[in-house]
Amino acid sequence: MSKALDCHKQWQGKIEVISRVSVQSQEELSIAYTPGVAEPCLAIAKDKELSYTYTRRSNLVAVITDGSAVLGLGNIGGLAGMPVMEGKCVLFKEFANVDAFPLCLSTQDSGEIITTVKNIAESFGGINLEDISAPRCFEIERALKESCDIPIFHDDQHGTAIVTAAALINALKFTKRKIEKTKIVIIGTGAAGSAIARLLLQMNVFDILMCDRKGILYEGRDGMDWSKVELAAITNKQNQKGAIADAVVGADVIVGVSGPDTVTLDMIKSMNKDAIVFALSNPTPEIMPDLAVKGGAVVVGTGRSDYPNQINNVLAFPGIFRGALDAKATKITEGMKAVSVHAIANLVSDSELAADFVIPRPFDKRVAKAVADAVYKQAKLEKVCR
Amino acid sequence: MSKALDCHKQWQGKIEVISRVSVQSQEELSIAYTPGVAEPCLAIAKDKELSYTYTRRSNLVAVITDGSAVLGLGNIGGLAGMPVMEGKCVLFKEFANVDAFPLCLSTQDSGEIITTVKNIAESFGGINLEDISAPRCFEIERALKESCDIPIFHDDQHGTAIVTAAALINALKFTKRKIEKTKIVIIGTGAAGSAIARLLLQMNVFDILMCDRKGILYEGRDGMDWSKVELAAITNKQNQKGAIADAVVGADVIVGVSGPDTVTLDMIKSMNKDAIVFALSNPTPEIMPDLAVKGGAVVVGTGRSDYPNQINNVLAFPGIFRGALDAKATKITEGMKAVSVHAIANLVSDSELAADFVIPRPFDKRVAKAVADAVYKQAKLEKVCR
Repeated sequence: MSKALDCHKQWQGKIEVISRVSVQSQEELSIAYTPGVAEPCLAIAKDKELSYTYTRRSNLVAVITDGSAVLGLGNIGGLAGMPVMEGKCVLFKEFANVDAFPLCLSTQDSGEIITTVKNIAESFGGINLEDISAPRCFEIERALKESCDIPIFHDDQHGTAIVTAAALINALKFTKRKIEKTKIVIIGTGAAGSAIARLLLQMNVFDILMCDRKGILYEGRDGMDWSKVELAAITNKQNQKGAIADAVVGADVIVGVSGPDTVTLDMIKSMNKDAIVFALSNPTPEIMPDLAVKGGAVVVGTGRSDYPNQINNVLAFPGIFRGALDAKATKITEGMKAVSVHAIANLVSDSELAADFVIPRPFDKRVAKAVADAVYKQAKLEKVCR
Repeated sequence: MSKALDCHKQWQGKIEVISRVSVQSQEELSIAYTPGVAEPCLAIAKDKELSYTYTRRSNLVAVITDGSAVLGLGNIGGLAGMPVMEGKCVLFKEFANVDAFPLCLSTQDSGEIITTVKNIAESFGGINLEDISAPRCFEIERALKESCDIPIFHDDQHGTAIVTAAALINALKFTKRKIEKTKIVIIGTGAAGSAIARLLLQMNVFDILMCDRKGILYEGRDGMDWSKVELAAITNKQNQKGAIADAVVGADVIVGVSGPDTVTLDMIKSMNKDAIVFALSNPTPEIMPDLAVKGGAVVVGTGRSDYPNQINNVLAFPGIFRGALDAKATKITEGMKAVSVHAIANLVSDSELAADFVIPRPFDKRVAKAVADAVYKQAKLEKVCR
């Protein structure tokens, strides 16, 4: 048996639900339970907002998946995704003291997912959607944002986008580029690719090409689902056509969020000088870092811990929810994502900035706090708090 | 501010989700999360039963309400019921080391509730339904039992029935009655009343009258919902008609699960000698114990901690789920309920048995263990285990 299997068996679950109160005596029981408990119940019945005062909701996030796109494993179903969701909950607790509880759904019907999550949402202060396949993840997130008055955050989209953007800001600084003149090619049009494109467009990137397996997304291309149609409409202003290899010619940046080995040495060679390559497919990147460097890339990032510049969502989601919960935010806004990007990027000082250090390390304890502070302030500024 | 409100505010929730593993280093992270976590995921994808080995499911119960019948508070909605649900989760943990997580639903549509609970059921090893109004609770429980292969247990029905039956067994022993010759009147035809009647019928009680506000349930009575029609069909063999006051004449036992002050002194006086009265409406019983004794009742039980013979569900549900989880039971059977009744009753020894001691006290630590052992053995005997 492998070490991971062995450990998981011994752990008997990576999370645990414990009691915060003592009920060793009749008197204690009468306060925590009946009859005393009637008072907070009636108080909440009168004013729903008091659920944040009298229950755990104020520190509680649901981590919800349907198991349709789990890590690199694909559609393994909700139940099989539970070890990942429990792991995510561990990270929430360890990095930001957020209570997180995993819920694995046994349906992959978008309508049922929306109904189910909506019906349980009031039990939580926020909802982290996880590992739901595109384009379903987009409609599910949109519907839940409309019907729930708590933060809804699909981490595979926005967590990835925020951390990637933070790394990009520093990589551009290191290579002395202006963001508005940077040409970026995003390979992969799923949850991550879509969210990265949208976030970068807000950050004044003007020149983005999105590529799927068939090549560049352009308006009018055959066989695109609605999410690709949307992406084609907001990127690729010159309506360029062609394969991935065509897209990357002269590009400053490649962001790969697709799958193993979709980027070749020749592609890197065809890029602009001092190229930036984020090959985020995990565990096998779009191109191995050594090869990317050989092709002329100066800054290379991956999702892996055994190479420099690890672009890891754990830099974003714990702090984002910590800040949102502390502010009693009702949503995660574009502004809150933007300040998270800069909070992460700013933790790499000018003197530290290097080709192999454009993003803080995952275990840097300052990150979650910096992100939480930024998100908290932004939520207050935008007045999206209870 | 009252003490209960004050305490609830300080607690900031009565439960907490914690991590059972350390993720202080890259190596630890790589086992608990990516890439190591892929292995238990793939193992579960291959064999669903391994979810009991590699995740917290083996010790995890959901406590779910729609807030339609919370304690004595009525329909206050799911969210306002959360302090009760958190309290229940505390009791699960403290009395039987069962991890329990509260989910308060924002819908009271039975169909939506069934769909929602079904969709999240695989995340848990069992489901405790709580404070759902009758007759909706019956159809919801039935539908979930059919569609889920884990224990589904509506505590307001079965927990109450089990503890009441345990108290009754000892009260009958104390008053030297044979159960098959005992005449019992149950006042209240909701979740508790219905389940008590059904359980007693299985325990060889033959003479049961059920009463609602309008009096005795009998076949053909006008204006009964489907659940009352069912109850009328299985009780009241002589098709007796009349008010509550008519029903109790000559009765050996009154079980009140209705509301305050529905039983009068005159009613008690009209009962058989050595009458047994369980007045379980809480906090205000159907008749106060002093008055019941004055009317001639010999054994009186209530739901209150400030009177003898407290009939409290906490004697049942922690041990039942402990036993069911340990046995990996796929359901809670009638047999498992029956052995729970006797496990609880048997903890009152012949030498202890008295008019004011027919049921163990709620804090008796032996109870949960005795119930768990009995349930575990019965599950194995009936072969309803994974």
